[in-house]
Amino acid sequence: MNQKVSPAAVAALLTEFWSPRVVAEIDDSYVKVAKVQGSLIWHAHEKEDELFFILKGRLRIEMEGSTVELSEGEAFVVPRGVRHNPVADEECHIMLIERKTTLHTGTDITERTRTIEEQLRSN
Amino acid sequence: MNQKVSPAAVAALLTEFWSPRVVAEIDDSYVKVAKVQGSLIWHAHEKEDELFFILKGRLRIEMEGSTVELSEGEAFVVPRGVRHNPVADEECHIMLIERKTTLHTGTDITERTRTIEEQLRSN
Repeated sequence: MNQKVSPAAVAALLTEFWSPRVVAEIDDSYVKVAKVQGSLIWHAHEKEDELFFILKGRLRIEMEGSTVELSEGEAFVVPRGVRHNPVADEECHIMLIERKTTLHTGTDITERTRTIEEQLRSN
Repeated sequence: MNQKVSPAAVAALLTEFWSPRVVAEIDDSYVKVAKVQGSLIWHAHEKEDELFFILKGRLRIEMEGSTVELSEGEAFVVPRGVRHNPVADEECHIMLIERKTTLHTGTDITERTRTIEEQLRSN
């Protein structure tokens, strides 16, 4: 993946909500993009922080005890161990930075869960 | 730093070129922003990849044997060990993702070199 990438352009081409796609790797982390709408599920990553960066639209990250509202161009790190649920009232495009070990729906396997192989495919 | 941040807004407020500022941390990495113009210096990070994301303007990353031209919204990972020199013909605002161990001018200490304490200050 040693080439430049436009995360926003890749996100715009996605056809499925909540199906992250890896666009770059940095050491033991992946840069991913996703097109989201509605809510994912409540989950936590016990050992990994997770960065959200809003490429387009707005995202609300519900956490136990607080909620963060993010607009285009804003970033937020969900600390390890914090249960959270991302919610987009309208279509939103996001960039994520996660460790390669991070399970995007935490340890809860649901119909939303995508394997890393699915996240690594190029189309 | 458990609060949302607008990397572009922080970069726009910087008054000094090539002086990175930490805006978030993810595990053992920092998210930084910088306002750049002209060229930095040729350097490499032997053990760490480095991600560049263009918030505003254009950046050219010269590497030995190749050059990448990045526009607003584009990202590129300089692989570990690759000597590189970022160049901006006009003012450019960038977001970086680097390991906390990464020295932003490599092992070459120059007048451009900023300590991590300088990069962590809030103003």
